[in-house]
Amino acid sequence: MSNIIPIRDKTSAYKKDPDTGASAGALEALQALVASDMGLVNETIIKRMDSPVALIPELAGHLIASGGKRLRPMLTIASSKLVGYEGERCARLAACVEFIHTATLLHDDVVDESNLRRGKTSANSLWGNKPSVLVGDFLFSRSFELMVEDGSLRVLRILSGASSIIAEGEVLQLTTANNTATTEDSYLQVIQAKTAELFASACQIAAVVAERSEAEEQALRDYGMNLGIAFQLIDDALDFSAKQATLGKTVGDDFREGKITLPIILAFRRGDEEEQRFWTRTLVAQKQDEGDLEHALRLMEAHNTLTDTADRARHYGDKARDALAIFPAGPARHALEGIVDFCIERVY
Amino acid sequence: MSNIIPIRDKTSAYKKDPDTGASAGALEALQALVASDMGLVNETIIKRMDSPVALIPELAGHLIASGGKRLRPMLTIASSKLVGYEGERCARLAACVEFIHTATLLHDDVVDESNLRRGKTSANSLWGNKPSVLVGDFLFSRSFELMVEDGSLRVLRILSGASSIIAEGEVLQLTTANNTATTEDSYLQVIQAKTAELFASACQIAAVVAERSEAEEQALRDYGMNLGIAFQLIDDALDFSAKQATLGKTVGDDFREGKITLPIILAFRRGDEEEQRFWTRTLVAQKQDEGDLEHALRLMEAHNTLTDTADRARHYGDKARDALAIFPAGPARHALEGIVDFCIERVY
Repeated sequence: MSNIIPIRDKTSAYKKDPDTGASAGALEALQALVASDMGLVNETIIKRMDSPVALIPELAGHLIASGGKRLRPMLTIASSKLVGYEGERCARLAACVEFIHTATLLHDDVVDESNLRRGKTSANSLWGNKPSVLVGDFLFSRSFELMVEDGSLRVLRILSGASSIIAEGEVLQLTTANNTATTEDSYLQVIQAKTAELFASACQIAAVVAERSEAEEQALRDYGMNLGIAFQLIDDALDFSAKQATLGKTVGDDFREGKITLPIILAFRRGDEEEQRFWTRTLVAQKQDEGDLEHALRLMEAHNTLTDTADRARHYGDKARDALAIFPAGPARHALEGIVDFCIERVY
Repeated sequence: MSNIIPIRDKTSAYKKDPDTGASAGALEALQALVASDMGLVNETIIKRMDSPVALIPELAGHLIASGGKRLRPMLTIASSKLVGYEGERCARLAACVEFIHTATLLHDDVVDESNLRRGKTSANSLWGNKPSVLVGDFLFSRSFELMVEDGSLRVLRILSGASSIIAEGEVLQLTTANNTATTEDSYLQVIQAKTAELFASACQIAAVVAERSEAEEQALRDYGMNLGIAFQLIDDALDFSAKQATLGKTVGDDFREGKITLPIILAFRRGDEEEQRFWTRTLVAQKQDEGDLEHALRLMEAHNTLTDTADRARHYGDKARDALAIFPAGPARHALEGIVDFCIERVY
């Protein structure tokens, strides 16, 4: 039995790596496109997370330097290339986006009581919950200070709105956790808020800064939103993938925490009474014994729920790609299209 | 032995209540001055803490409706009266100030593992830490959304800067906690950041909105800053006051948590070797036995540290009052002066 998500090639512009299944070169193409601006992004991040209170840069640096892909700021920069923007504002705003993301990660790890983040010991495990909560608050405030320096009220409106929606989504997720009756649509509502909204805003602000048309702004927003949904769906499927273990991540974290994600929602709905009792015992009553995770994986395999979750992700990926149609072909559009494949087919 | 802080009348414009020692009528005078605007503040608070995710208004409402004095928003409104502002913007910005304050309270209670807040069961005790962290994030984001709607980049700059400083101060407090060698000045640095900065900003923004001179803006900022320091000093002294118990608050919370506040800093510095060993055992090693709190109270009494903490507070209160000298006499200035006495002499 393999629980690696099978890849079904359709629209990718990049050659697949036969070992990993990932669109070889898609991430690299994006990185090459944004390289010089990302220098300024990283410089801004390092400079603005600094504080005379040493624990702040220490803790923030642990997370920010711990091998995140900087996907969201790269999206802002690539979007700015797509709309022909040439100044430095987007790099600084991309740092704001990364700060908001980092703050939510810090608070998420406290909320989830996670011990690992990106394969490294999480900040809350190393320093305790208290500094994680407070340094998250600091980065969040810093992000707004940076936006205020930039001076665009429209950008401030977009990112403060996104922050509210993210927090709302996280609370919604808490209230739906451990509820096997969660529907696919209410799950989508959660991931749209907690993940996709920041992707959408990260792309949209580039069009705002470049003063492009409402249509282009909306197109970038739609691209980011659909990409973000696809990204999170794959993330949730990957939690049950054997490949996780090779990256220092543990398999089945969501299962242990009773988090109801799409692979489980589908398995519950498609399961018979006995299976539903199994899901209720393990996720609602949270009574888990040895072998339960393996049984859960077998049920998901039997009902094809990982494959189908990836299929759903592909649907949103297709929408993201189509949203870019109004922009002229070129390296920026090519890179943004490639990143859709990368997000869907990534095995890490 | 009494550990009620003695009142030394000097400059108060209000008659003292012989039972409570509080400046009778000072709070009421402020409340009367700001009453009609506070209606709009409260309306904004209720409306903007709402969310389709029911847990958010439920949890936020618990804290916001739980008998807080709304001191900070009242300061914004009273300051706006002082500078002759007559519009509605200050009421909405006062709601932002209260949201920031509420968000920090929610996160504080998680950080401190507090079970009580304003004499009621704290939100984290009722709903757990997770919603407290996330609803705090929501209120914080909402506050920025409201500021963006107001549209003043200067106000945004002041309040986002204040938020960073507050978080920085909270982290600094963590790193100095359980350290009896903390000096009075580094303690002052902490309370200036975590408490007084928001008082200062709450007052300052009224002058910004009313487009008053730099001098008036600075005077209001200085007033708030000094008032905030006095307020926190008294708060820290009150933690050891017998009056706490009558308000459903427990006496000695800070002692049990090993929080180093001025009454303890002074007692440690003034104590002999044996006394210093006592403070080190109870606060640094956190080994506390029955009778230790009572012994701590006796040591503070012997060294007059509660009285002297109140004296220090009075010093900042005097500075706050003097900062108002550039404004014309009248009901607004009278109320703001009275609130200095109220903060210093409050017995709750």
